[in-house]
Order: sequence, then structure tokens, then C-alpha cells
Amino acid sequence: MVTSPIITLTTDFGTQDPYVGVMKGVIHSINRHSSIIDISHDVQPQSILEGAFIIGSSHRFFPKGTLHVAVVDPGVGTSRSALLLVTPAAYFLGPDNGIFSYIVKEGFRGDPEMSSGYQVRVPNGYRAYRLTNPEFWMHPVSSTFHGRDVFAPVAAHLSLGVPEDRLGEEIHLLTYLPVTQPQWKGDTLTGRVVHVDRFGNLITDIPAFLLSGGHAITIVIKEHCIAGISRSYAEGERLLAIIGSNNTLELSVRNGSAAHSLGAGVEEEVRIRKPGT
Amino acid sequence: MVTSPIITLTTDFGTQDPYVGVMKGVIHSINRHSSIIDISHDVQPQSILEGAFIIGSSHRFFPKGTLHVAVVDPGVGTSRSALLLVTPAAYFLGPDNGIFSYIVKEGFRGDPEMSSGYQVRVPNGYRAYRLTNPEFWMHPVSSTFHGRDVFAPVAAHLSLGVPEDRLGEEIHLLTYLPVTQPQWKGDTLTGRVVHVDRFGNLITDIPAFLLSGGHAITIVIKEHCIAGISRSYAEGERLLAIIGSNNTLELSVRNGSAAHSLGAGVEEEVRIRKPGT
Amino acid sequence: MVTSPIITLTTDFGTQDPYVGVMKGVIHSINRHSSIIDISHDVQPQSILEGAFIIGSSHRFFPKGTLHVAVVDPGVGTSRSALLLVTPAAYFLGPDNGIFSYIVKEGFRGDPEMSSGYQVRVPNGYRAYRLTNPEFWMHPVSSTFHGRDVFAPVAAHLSLGVPEDRLGEEIHLLTYLPVTQPQWKGDTLTGRVVHVDRFGNLITDIPAFLLSGGHAITIVIKEHCIAGISRSYAEGERLLAIIGSNNTLELSVRNGSAAHSLGAGVEEEVRIRKPGT
Repeated sequence: MVTSPIITLTTDFGTQDPYVGVMKGVIHSINRHSSIIDISHDVQPQSILEGAFIIGSSHRFFPKGTLHVAVVDPGVGTSRSALLLVTPAAYFLGPDNGIFSYIVKEGFRGDPEMSSGYQVRVPNGYRAYRLTNPEFWMHPVSSTFHGRDVFAPVAAHLSLGVPEDRLGEEIHLLTYLPVTQPQWKGDTLTGRVVHVDRFGNLITDIPAFLLSGGHAITIVIKEHCIAGISRSYAEGERLLAIIGSNNTLELSVRNGSAAHSLGAGVEEEVRIRKPGT
Repeated sequence: MVTSPIITLTTDFGTQDPYVGVMKGVIHSINRHSSIIDISHDVQPQSILEGAFIIGSSHRFFPKGTLHVAVVDPGVGTSRSALLLVTPAAYFLGPDNGIFSYIVKEGFRGDPEMSSGYQVRVPNGYRAYRLTNPEFWMHPVSSTFHGRDVFAPVAAHLSLGVPEDRLGEEIHLLTYLPVTQPQWKGDTLTGRVVHVDRFGNLITDIPAFLLSGGHAITIVIKEHCIAGISRSYAEGERLLAIIGSNNTLELSVRNGSAAHSLGAGVEEEVRIRKPGT
Repeated sequence: MVTSPIITLTTDFGTQDPYVGVMKGVIHSINRHSSIIDISHDVQPQSILEGAFIIGSSHRFFPKGTLHVAVVDPGVGTSRSALLLVTPAAYFLGPDNGIFSYIVKEGFRGDPEMSSGYQVRVPNGYRAYRLTNPEFWMHPVSSTFHGRDVFAPVAAHLSLGVPEDRLGEEIHLLTYLPVTQPQWKGDTLTGRVVHVDRFGNLITDIPAFLLSGGHAITIVIKEHCIAGISRSYAEGERLLAIIGSNNTLELSVRNGSAAHSLGAGVEEEVRIRKPGT
């Protein structure tokens, strides 16, 4: 049970249309004293993986017990489940389509074993519910906007203290999209760009702890080599590598956009060569 | 009289400039405990009709007594009136230029009778006030930003419980922009696209209740025919028709943009042919 | 000492990435009852001067004691200081890189005398602190995101009443970027465009009080002459001059964009000729 936690919103709805405002109206209609924080509404339309990265990299900066609503939902109106995932730290509400894959991966401390169809078991210490109780929804439920009709009202009721098991039935499998992870091949570590931010920084999946001896390593992206890791954007060369705020390797161009300069985006390979190799 | 209701904001001010933040600063300077929700600030610059659609399609999802401020105001600084419209459900503050046409239409349950110059009488059960009392404004009043100098402070005072009739004088006519409405001609119903959303969905003015027998009808837009209405984005063909979250007909392209694929936008005609015609 | 004032945010972080949401998460993790208002997150990436204009033109519309956080920070991770500037009206937190130049200029009621390296003394009545006490930061402190690791947590602690002098050491010099100011040469006043807003309005640095006798003056921008100052956007010619909401001269195109029509942007010269010259 929770009492008036913060509710965060992550969607691909944009801010031009009234969709996000309407979700907030619905939440406030149920819990007048809600405290709502936008994480992002500019996830690329229908990019579940980008939504997964956004919520996966930001949830740990919110207070314990925060209620995270994430809606990137190309399967809205089909038989895909609506999910409540409860972890020791927070609550996650959204379609059961893999949008919480980073959260699930944290629960396994690594890659989970997949059964068929991108299904994995719920990690130990987590609980998962399929939202099936229409008592807590807006009616009539549309076929196109469960953010408004299911997730917003359920979030509001949950924030008022409605127990999780009244919202639906507990489940033991949920959808997981294999989240990219760097691989060793001999002395070369190969990772990938997982996000391009507003500044054109290329954020990779290579964690800082794999980069000890940072000054001596060589980073390769496309035909470019970067020697060593800089300590700040301003102290590096024009094209530089740095440990970013996500605690992973980032490639950056000083006073410019690495994405644009290198013609690189999400999925681009980044290779690390250890000293002497 | 109202006590600290939610205040919503709908404008064409964008979010790059500080205009919206400044309105919130003014509101909080008067009512420190305001609760403000953005509906949209990306209405096309000076598009009163788009602003009217945005507020017209979202106000009903907010709690009773909410105070909606909508400012798309090409006539700012001229003799156009500043309006407070009170309905049984909510309060609406903005220029008297037709931005609340959908709200007015609801009051008439259909098209109102217009006198000259786009003026209609105030619907039964509504009250309207011309904001004329400078006691509740920011001074000096600029010629270009009544969002900050008139509507924000009046909203804040109203939210503190200032009675409506202290804000100005009651009026009996207000501005109405004829809002598009589908028309029957023989067996063909002709409607129009009234909004294009972030996903490129074409939202029409054709209400769901006119589409009974949905599976047998044919929808025509430009040179394209769509057979029947889909129950979800994922279950339709690539180009599909669906009842959208606004409870009207929407045209959509799966994993794409209908606006882009069809080269269609606001005002585009959409025709419905009944079965057997 | 302050108790739960409003916290405003002005950054170049955009709203696509989770950076702003994360800052709010950090603030709420420290002060659960924070009240945060966005001023803008769409400052041109790394444009300190644009950020300075945005916060400089909006802070006065917020309640006394408001805590303004402004982060446009190309020098993040270098030895540039983190600054708390206290004025009689408000608190300003951000990198010491000139982002508060308009606030400093107000303190001097004009251009301050610069010592070497863009350093000026702190104006009388202001106090400035270099944030050096890591007790009030998020750890580990990244090299790339002091908005999250330094400014957000310090703002939250300050909003809870932590005294300023516990946050760091008082300083007597701070960074100032010379802010543009119109110049007389004989009978001609030459100013500059300092901001282009969403509508394409060209906002200049020429204050209204220099434009007495407005109807008789001539305004020159590029090869265009404008005769006199209009009282509203709607009452002017197609290209018109008006006193904008910032109380300075603005150039505007009715139902269009002056920036686009004139091909003009920030830094463009605007000249005023007095009557009879």
C-alpha cells in the first residue's frame, strides 16, 4: 500500500496534443492531491526500446515508492496485458510489452532466461499483476488510449492506497525485450549506442566499471579512433569519450553533435581495445 | 465561488520562450498554492480553431470546477473582449474570439443561431462576463501579453474565491466560430479532419454514434477506400479507420503516419457510404 | 533562510531526454513538498547568452524568495565554479559562467566595471557563494551533469532552509558576460535583437523609455523602414514595431514571422531615428 507517492509519466504522446494533459486531468479527478512529474513525452512514436531506456535510466533518481507510468503502446486495444510491476523500490504501470525490460534486468542482475515469445519469469523480490479489474478504469474504455482509460486511473487509485491485488491478478511471466549488452571477443569489447540525447551525445551500453585504465584504452566508432577517456567535455579533443551521467561510456563532440558529425545513431557499434592490443 | 481548483493552460506560446513559465509565476504570486496543469502550448501560432479543438476535447476529463485558461489571441491589444465563461462544469478564461466554440456548442446541444459578426447568445445554464475590472490585473498591462497581464492574474484571483461578478460585467452575447459538423447528402455522410495528432492520425468530426453497422460501411478519403472500422490499431490493415479516444472516427496508418501517407491534413473531406450504397 | 519557496528551472536540456525529470526526482527526494516551475528547457544548446536572457526577463514575475536554477553549462566538469547568487528578491543557482548577467546588471543599474577575464565584483546588496560543500550534493558527482548532482540537490536543501553559508564560501567576484545595450551616435540610437520568440517576433534591447514620441520616430532594420510604433499587433501594418511584453521594442509581422520575413535573428542591428532627422 502506498500513500500519495509521486506519479511520473513517460510516453510517446508528445506535448502538442492534449493527451498528456488529459491523463493528468483523470489522475487529479481521482486523487486531487497528486504530484505528477513528466519524465519525457517525446519518446520516438511507438519505440518501446527507447521508452524502456528512458524509464530504465531515470527511475532510480526518484523517491522510494514512486509510481512510474510508462505508455508506449503500439498494441493498445489488442489482447496485450496491462501490467503493474512492483519492485522493492517503486511501482511501474504500463503495457506488458517490454517497456520495463531494464527494470526486469536489474531484478535478475543480468540477462534473464527467456521462455518462448519474449516471456521471462518475474524476478525474485518483484511482484507483477495483470490489470483486469475494470472497477478502477475510466468508462467507456477506448480502443486507442489506455493511458487515459486504464493506466492513469489505476495509478491514481494506487496512489490513494488501493491494494495491488485488488487491481488484478498476480502473474508469474512478463514480456522482456533483450536489452543490448556489451560483449567481449578476445581483447575487444563491443558495445552499442543505446540513446542519442539532445546534444547529439552518443550514449552507449558500456558501463564505466569495464573501462578501468581509461587513459590507455582506445575507443573505435566507425572509422574514428579515440585515445583515452576525458574527464570533462571541455578538456577533451573535439571528438571525445567520457563517462556520462548514466555511468556508461558516452561519445561527444565539443560544441557540436557527435551523432551528426559521425553520422551515427542508436545501434551503432562501439569497440574498446585494451592497452597493448 | 470556487476554492483552489486546478488551473489548466492551453496556449500557442510554445515552450521555448519563457511566456508560459511567466504566467505560472504570476499565478503563484497571487495564489501560492495553485495547482496548474498544461494541456498544450503548441497550438499552431494564432490558430484559434485548433486551440478551440484542444480545449473542447479535453476539458471534460478534469474535475468539476476546474479553471481552464486558453490563450490563442491574435487580437491582443485591440478592442476584443476578455471573457470569463461559466458552465455548470467549469470556468473558461480567454479572449472572446471563439476559442470556446466547442464549449458553447455543447451548451446548445448543436449549432447555435448566429446573429451578425459571429455573435451568439450565451447558452441557457451558462453565464459570461467581460473582464473589465483592472483591480485584478497585472500593471502596467502590456499590449502584447494579456496571458500574463489579464488572464493569469484573473485566474489566480478566481481560484482564491473572488466572485465572478467582481471581475467584470455580465454579457449576453459572445463570439462563436462555426465548428465543423458532418452533413448528410443522400446516403453519404461528409465530415472533415479536425485535428492531426503527433502520430499522424487524422481525427475527424464524425461521431461514433453515426457509424453503427461499422463493419459494413465504406470510408473514403481522397482516392482511398477503407472497408469497415477496426477495433485496434494493430488489428486493422495498414490504412485503417477506428473510433478514436475523442469518440469520433479516426484514420490511421499502422506503424506510420496517415497524414503523411495520404498527404492529408485539417479540413480534408472524409465521406462515409452506408452498406449497399 | 528560506522555507519551501518555488523552484524554477531554466536549462538547455530539452524535454526529449529524461534529464529534467531526473532533476525533479532528485529535488523531490530531498524536499518532498517542492513546487517546481519550468521556465524553459529549450535554450539553444550551450547558449549561455540565450539562457541569460530567458532568466533575466522572467525572474521578476515570480514570488519574492523564489529559487531560480539555471543550467546552461558547457564548462561542466572543469574548474568553473558553481554559484549561488542571492539578491533582495530571489536566489539564483547555476554555473558561474555569466548566465546571471542580466541579474548582475540590474544590481549595478547599468554596466558594471569589469576586471580581467569577465570578472566583476558582486553588486551592493547581493551576496554570492561558491558551492563547495559536497555534503549537499548527490554522490558520486558525474563530470557531465551537475544539474542533477549539484544544482538540484543544493536547490532542494536551500528550499528546506539550509543557510546559504553552509553551502559554500562567500565570494566577491563573479563572471559577467557584457549584455548588449543600445548606443547613441548623434541622433541615431542603435540597438540589437536579443531574442527571437516562437512567433518570429524580434525582441530588441531598446527600452520603451527611450522611445518617447513613438509615433514620429522611424525604425530601421536591414533595408526596411518602419514609421512609428503600433499599439497592437492587429492595428499595425504588416511589418510593425511595438512595445513588447518585455517593455522593449519588438519587430513583428502580422500573421507571420518577422524573423523569417526579414531574414533576421539575434544580433541583428536595429536603428532608431528621432523625428526630423
